[in-house]
Amino acid sequence: MIGGGFGGLEAAKHLASAEVELTLIDRRNFHLFQPLTYQVATGALSPAEVCYPLRAIFKGRRNVRVMMAEVTAIDLADRELRLRGGGGEELRVGYDSLVVAGGSAYSYFGHEEWREVAPEVKSLESALDLRARLLGAFEEAELQRDPERRRALLTFVVVGAGPTGVEMAGQIAELARDTLRNEFHEIDPGEGRVLLVEMGDRVLSTFPPSLSRRAQRALERLGVTPMLRHTVVGIDAESVTIEAAGAEAERIAAHNVIWAAGVTASALGANLAEQTGADLDRAGRILVEPDLTLPGHPEVLTIGDMVRVREADGSARIFPGVAPVAMQQGRYAAKAVRARLEGRTPGPFHYLDKGNLATIGRARAVADLHFLRLSGFPAWLTWLLVHIWYLIGFQNRMLVLVRWIYSFLTRGRGARLIAGPGRDGRREP
Amino acid sequence: MIGGGFGGLEAAKHLASAEVELTLIDRRNFHLFQPLTYQVATGALSPAEVCYPLRAIFKGRRNVRVMMAEVTAIDLADRELRLRGGGGEELRVGYDSLVVAGGSAYSYFGHEEWREVAPEVKSLESALDLRARLLGAFEEAELQRDPERRRALLTFVVVGAGPTGVEMAGQIAELARDTLRNEFHEIDPGEGRVLLVEMGDRVLSTFPPSLSRRAQRALERLGVTPMLRHTVVGIDAESVTIEAAGAEAERIAAHNVIWAAGVTASALGANLAEQTGADLDRAGRILVEPDLTLPGHPEVLTIGDMVRVREADGSARIFPGVAPVAMQQGRYAAKAVRARLEGRTPGPFHYLDKGNLATIGRARAVADLHFLRLSGFPAWLTWLLVHIWYLIGFQNRMLVLVRWIYSFLTRGRGARLIAGPGRDGRREP
Repeated sequence: MIGGGFGGLEAAKHLASAEVELTLIDRRNFHLFQPLTYQVATGALSPAEVCYPLRAIFKGRRNVRVMMAEVTAIDLADRELRLRGGGGEELRVGYDSLVVAGGSAYSYFGHEEWREVAPEVKSLESALDLRARLLGAFEEAELQRDPERRRALLTFVVVGAGPTGVEMAGQIAELARDTLRNEFHEIDPGEGRVLLVEMGDRVLSTFPPSLSRRAQRALERLGVTPMLRHTVVGIDAESVTIEAAGAEAERIAAHNVIWAAGVTASALGANLAEQTGADLDRAGRILVEPDLTLPGHPEVLTIGDMVRVREADGSARIFPGVAPVAMQQGRYAAKAVRARLEGRTPGPFHYLDKGNLATIGRARAVADLHFLRLSGFPAWLTWLLVHIWYLIGFQNRMLVLVRWIYSFLTRGRGARLIAGPGRDGRREP
Repeated sequence: MIGGGFGGLEAAKHLASAEVELTLIDRRNFHLFQPLTYQVATGALSPAEVCYPLRAIFKGRRNVRVMMAEVTAIDLADRELRLRGGGGEELRVGYDSLVVAGGSAYSYFGHEEWREVAPEVKSLESALDLRARLLGAFEEAELQRDPERRRALLTFVVVGAGPTGVEMAGQIAELARDTLRNEFHEIDPGEGRVLLVEMGDRVLSTFPPSLSRRAQRALERLGVTPMLRHTVVGIDAESVTIEAAGAEAERIAAHNVIWAAGVTASALGANLAEQTGADLDRAGRILVEPDLTLPGHPEVLTIGDMVRVREADGSARIFPGVAPVAMQQGRYAAKAVRARLEGRTPGPFHYLDKGNLATIGRARAVADLHFLRLSGFPAWLTWLLVHIWYLIGFQNRMLVLVRWIYSFLTRGRGARLIAGPGRDGRREP
């Protein structure tokens, strides 16, 4: 089992009770509840509230082994994984059945140099870095006397208006307008500008157009300026350059750029494609069979947002890169491994799409439940309950609920710490 | 007002309601509840639970200005502070009255190279670094096949048996024996060794000898080995060398060394001593008047663990470097500034010593309340109530209480994340 994200963890949980020896490998010692990482970046939640130690989940299960290591290669011929541990130890681990859930990461469209100046919100480290930068920008602006520099420090540009970008833009606007209100002397944090740059012609393009319109209106009411049909062509430490089709490029002085556009699949996809000749798309997603197995390797299932799935008609289907898809595929993978052990052949994977949720700010959200489209407070309540429900660990649910109730009532944020490397990578000794 | 620790914050809170313009300057944007930092280092609490944003404390108070900046120098002649902001901005701020509460940091007895390999537990960053190292050591040991290396990875050496060292050693022992129990396959975390190295002849030397003995027994029952009358003479990434008087130096293979010995006062003490000729001791503590003012400068009060106080008989008194001293001096400083504004002269500072508390582990502590000496569960309950009481912010109190109840019942720890730079300083991209 490679990967302790939603897919890998779900597969491991559903296999742990079977008569198998199970090894779960992840580079981290914790499962990250990724849909809430953006709340860490804006200081609403503390890292430990959206993470859960993998070992604690399988405590006392003698047939489950957790290894904190990076999978450097999969040797399909020898049925062996090559691992590298945190101390640099090289290891090999054999397998009979393998579930690969390597996930994906943000890609910078070939501009790796942007990563330094425009952190993403997917990994915990990047979210913490972002938190130090966002809060640090207000602190720096308070000390800054040059009005232009001050304006650039208080300009926040979010790239990509998918759910993460929309949530992030909404949170920054609330941070500036509500949380930090009346806390500064020289600046009014509320005068900060939040721009949401999107290539497409609407925000939340995976939602029905009516909900996109509502989300956009909710963002605008919060003070976010959506800039649709704009492409980012340059980012440096002090500005971002954007371009609309047919228009001239525009340079915006902004010290804070947040990246929430475009993902690239785990490099394990390419590693598997090399050995099997399976098709790989531009985002690095490998094409797998309708039963999620690797072509020619029924013992290897690949799941989550690192795969495309071959349909009956030969076309490739890309499922949205969200937790429900990964979890359903994880459960399917567990069932498929069990079936194989019993000599049965599982049917193809079917995705049950229960709907789509995105929150925009305090008490504002959109929910597309197919049979019902919600926006505003009812959508937000749905969002809240679903997220609390899926948070692993009773303790985390309690803590997050306490924080959210507190934030809702006071508009405060409990985890507003500037610690660790910020903009200039300085660390206290 | 320089410093947002216990002393500076208390002074600011008690002055904020007066008819003054108050500026509070700190390098950080938060107050750190330092007596619980060690719980962050062992994953029992999350950083945001022991920190509170300074701005949030003074939200809406128009006469209080918070600046996140480092004080590089105090110009007594011009009554001006020189500051450097997070973005490198140089600023000057004038004052009429000044309270300096710069605090102290761990000193490595002239061996600054030890800092890299033996993190301390005073600053939040170092505690997080330590957390990644401690938890990472178990993960690495699980993957390690060389038994000697494995043993070194599972050897934890705490230097200094004051309250912090004792608490740290107890926490590590509990982490290994209880929290991580039954979570590993190749190693038994309980076989980890915890050594507590102390120069003096007993642990908790500021407590009565009878409580030191009880603390030592409690530590031994937890599996900690106190090594009294031993001095550390060398530390590198893989070992620590200790020496007992008259005996030969002994090299212990240990990958985890935690520094909890010797402090050095803020460099602002030296800066003030230079300008006034006030006496500075080896630990950098400046000698101030009985009313905590700087000799010759009634407008400058210096408080907390960066000072020694001149007694009526001319001798210098060193108060223990604990929160109650700092808080009482902070309140005294606020009163003194008010008195000065009204043309009155305050009497000398008196410390009301309410007692000493140290916890050793789950449900074990020692408490010296002078009229009463407690150990075991009653002492621990006292410790718990006092700490919950003094934690700033209702939300933090709730969260910490939830975590502690959970940990007490399950022996689990909620914040066991390995994130940020660990042993080898690697960061995810």
